Amino acid sequence: MNGADRLCDSLLAHGVDVCFANPGTSEMHFVAALDAKPAMRCILGLFEGVVTGAADGYGRMADRPAVTLLHTGPGLANGLANLHNARRARSPLINIVGDHASTHLKFDAPLTTDIEALARPMSDYVRRIGGPDDVEAGVQGAWRAAMAPGVATLILPADSAWGDAAATPLNKSSPPSPGKVDETKVRAAALALRKAPGRVGVLLGARALRADCVAIADRLRGAGVRVFGEMFIARMERGGARAPVERIPYPVDLALGLLAEIDVLVLVGARAPVAFFAYPGKPGALAREGCEIVELAGPLDDVKPALAALADELAVKRASPARATAALPEAPTQGPLTDEAMTLIAANLLPEGAIVCDEALTSMRNFFHVSQGSAPHDYLMLDTGGAIGAGIPAMVGAAVACPNRKVIGLQADGSGMYTVQGLWTMARENLDVVVIVFANRAYAILHHEMRNVGVNHFGRNARRMLNLDEPALDWVMLARGLGVEAGRAETCEEFTRLLKGALGRRGPFVIEAVVWGPDTTGT
Amino acid sequence: MNGADRLCDSLLAHGVDVCFANPGTSEMHFVAALDAKPAMRCILGLFEGVVTGAADGYGRMADRPAVTLLHTGPGLANGLANLHNARRARSPLINIVGDHASTHLKFDAPLTTDIEALARPMSDYVRRIGGPDDVEAGVQGAWRAAMAPGVATLILPADSAWGDAAATPLNKSSPPSPGKVDETKVRAAALALRKAPGRVGVLLGARALRADCVAIADRLRGAGVRVFGEMFIARMERGGARAPVERIPYPVDLALGLLAEIDVLVLVGARAPVAFFAYPGKPGALAREGCEIVELAGPLDDVKPALAALADELAVKRASPARATAALPEAPTQGPLTDEAMTLIAANLLPEGAIVCDEALTSMRNFFHVSQGSAPHDYLMLDTGGAIGAGIPAMVGAAVACPNRKVIGLQADGSGMYTVQGLWTMARENLDVVVIVFANRAYAILHHEMRNVGVNHFGRNARRMLNLDEPALDWVMLARGLGVEAGRAETCEEFTRLLKGALGRRGPFVIEAVVWGPDTTGT
Repeated sequence: MNGADRLCDSLLAHGVDVCFANPGTSEMHFVAALDAKPAMRCILGLFEGVVTGAADGYGRMADRPAVTLLHTGPGLANGLANLHNARRARSPLINIVGDHASTHLKFDAPLTTDIEALARPMSDYVRRIGGPDDVEAGVQGAWRAAMAPGVATLILPADSAWGDAAATPLNKSSPPSPGKVDETKVRAAALALRKAPGRVGVLLGARALRADCVAIADRLRGAGVRVFGEMFIARMERGGARAPVERIPYPVDLALGLLAEIDVLVLVGARAPVAFFAYPGKPGALAREGCEIVELAGPLDDVKPALAALADELAVKRASPARATAALPEAPTQGPLTDEAMTLIAANLLPEGAIVCDEALTSMRNFFHVSQGSAPHDYLMLDTGGAIGAGIPAMVGAAVACPNRKVIGLQADGSGMYTVQGLWTMARENLDVVVIVFANRAYAILHHEMRNVGVNHFGRNARRMLNLDEPALDWVMLARGLGVEAGRAETCEEFTRLLKGALGRRGPFVIEAVVWGPDTTGT
Repeated sequence: MNGADRLCDSLLAHGVDVCFANPGTSEMHFVAALDAKPAMRCILGLFEGVVTGAADGYGRMADRPAVTLLHTGPGLANGLANLHNARRARSPLINIVGDHASTHLKFDAPLTTDIEALARPMSDYVRRIGGPDDVEAGVQGAWRAAMAPGVATLILPADSAWGDAAATPLNKSSPPSPGKVDETKVRAAALALRKAPGRVGVLLGARALRADCVAIADRLRGAGVRVFGEMFIARMERGGARAPVERIPYPVDLALGLLAEIDVLVLVGARAPVAFFAYPGKPGALAREGCEIVELAGPLDDVKPALAALADELAVKRASPARATAALPEAPTQGPLTDEAMTLIAANLLPEGAIVCDEALTSMRNFFHVSQGSAPHDYLMLDTGGAIGAGIPAMVGAAVACPNRKVIGLQADGSGMYTVQGLWTMARENLDVVVIVFANRAYAILHHEMRNVGVNHFGRNARRMLNLDEPALDWVMLARGLGVEAGRAETCEEFTRLLKGALGRRGPFVIEAVVWGPDTTGT
């Protein structure tokens, strides 16, 4: 057996059985080894951003890593933006990056790059495999780092793959234990929260946004504690009778306004809230000056028992209050396809158990609020690291992780173009995804930001950089070119008909929703 | 004036007047400044790989840098693969990468990344601008590094862009002088070349592949010197009555065979030839053991006077021998669209002054040889760093640099999918490009490489990773979805008709050439 065989066997021994791949020459022995392991499901992405974004979506939904197969430094580089999102989302993920044989590096052949330098900024763990007999230790280290959770990157020199490896029995590592939260932190948090009922809150992040934790946090309301969620939600179980959380809004002024009322903020799996960008004259920290920030549990800690202990310490009721599903206004059945109309139609039609992948950005901004009244679902915000292009790939990964659930993708057009190649993977794997593309034909978010920096009149150069018109993208043709069925909606009737149709069948479908973008004259 | 205005003014003062851009929020002040400078042509790419690849193609043809506008670490990351190609090609290029305001970095906001770490492996020069009044020094340093030539990356913190800058008079730097080759090197090279006429050669790279240098090298043949070109040719002026060079072949065994006959190899703007990848049991250096390798001039040196001095030292004739255009076999007019038929049709129809952008990989492998007999043209091999996805973007950049010349793109389908978004930029800018996509529906090069490592029977996983079928990509639909006219050819008649039609008009056109790929059963 060679190192590549050993690599596959060790991955499988750790339960890693999905490989999102875009291979190249230095990985041929690994490809050959994968080919001999039908237990590993190999899924091709036509660009590495698709591969890493799919692994992110998979990790968020499966709570265990898929493995990516990337070709040397440039292949890794192509996947870095979505690895950045995955790292910020704390997704479990293992990358295998092929490299030249160790004996070949001295020649500085064209593909030679400093892979470690490229990997480190977007990885929690980086290791270069030191030979065929180092493969198993590499997988063990990477798997434990991935299960922390985090992003692990293994560099596989070609001669570590092709060299002979001893066929000793394989060991499965035990997953790392999440950090235990000790009593002093619980008491300190409770003490702080008692100071000003009604003006105190918990900020939930990471696993604290799963249904079991939100239910416990909901009990804290009985002690006058408000329940907030992070600005970027990696994954939240919500809808139906589940308790709501108030998400920290993206616009700085709204976030500052919301948190101006808060004297004490307890962090549960979250970090202290900060502005996404700096603006001249505005603060970077979103909590008000003088707000007391207390960390109960970090993103890698065991948040559920910490929350339960906090609830006990605050002596709130043992059970979460019974809740009715939030009110959901009826959807319009006809008329122009406004943002509000799309929001209501989609929220009303959301099937139970749906996985919503949200990279809508400026479209359907109210969807998170409205869909509190939808059927129970998982909600994933994709650009957790602020890198666009996560949407279509994450839909792929979520659908692979959960083949019996419907994935609903809310996709901005500008971001969707970054990794449009992912539609082909949906077609090939017949993934059960409805992609709603909001065709506003602009980087609408940048129109807003230009106004934020005081520019209200756009000239030719600004229009050429911020608008996606001349020519307009034809998403129906693009989808069909990539093998996915598609339709275009310009009215509520058309949108409802297409969405119902797509929900009533299996397999991928793209709906191009032609919506009013910003005034593209920029004036 | 603010730092961003200063940045634009300084770039324009250095003659940098094309900006390939994909902006984001942290670059809004730069966008506003660009908007106030109609002398700067801003060209949007819908993905950063398009932006950097276009700047590479532009730099190769213009011999001066365009500037890219990239959004923080992830935006840079998306462009790194083509920056890697550009750096290996020694293209002049300046990146401007926006970053958070310096005061905001401490918050580790979602988009925060180690931009320097990402930039260094693919840049010859990296500098973070230290404030609005440091902008001019940054541009001067970057421009000089770009003109070396090389890839320069400037990091622009948002507060360096929005802060006030003193409006002092702008200075234009002088370009760096190329390294002078001294007499001792010329004499050493001449001495070595005299040792074994017929078994000695010069290896031309970088600027030594321009027509004036090749003509001088051609004179050396009079002294029994063979004239070789690098494996990856960034740009070569050739065709018509120009002298040919023998390119070092990509397959290791062919390269070893060619160079087995060579006792002395003199490097002129080239590096010693090495295998693209290592293979078990094969050497990494391509020159035979014992071959004497002598560097006359490195890639940054002034190669033309060095070559002229070498010719004088060898006392060869003062003029290049008069040459007839190489023979070019007639093209078939009908029948199946074989690789040979496409090669001959394209070589015969190549218009004078065409710019050939070659990312065909396994298709038209014989085109370089055959097109020696075509009309005079420039020939660019795109994957100089081995990173695929350079093709469509480089065609964009070459067409922007040379608006009065026809760009002919030879594009593999797998590589083309990496940066397919570039077709939209061709449509928007009405660039004069014919893109011939070789639809073999496989990563055919990897089929060869699997056989190279001894795997001849492919199972399901290998087929799923190496084939692009199920479903087949529809390039005509894809092109139209991106606003580019397109047609499909399956016979010589159709291919000839479409190519003639595309050459006879202005503007972009895609020809999907459906060709026989490798046996996709892999057996």
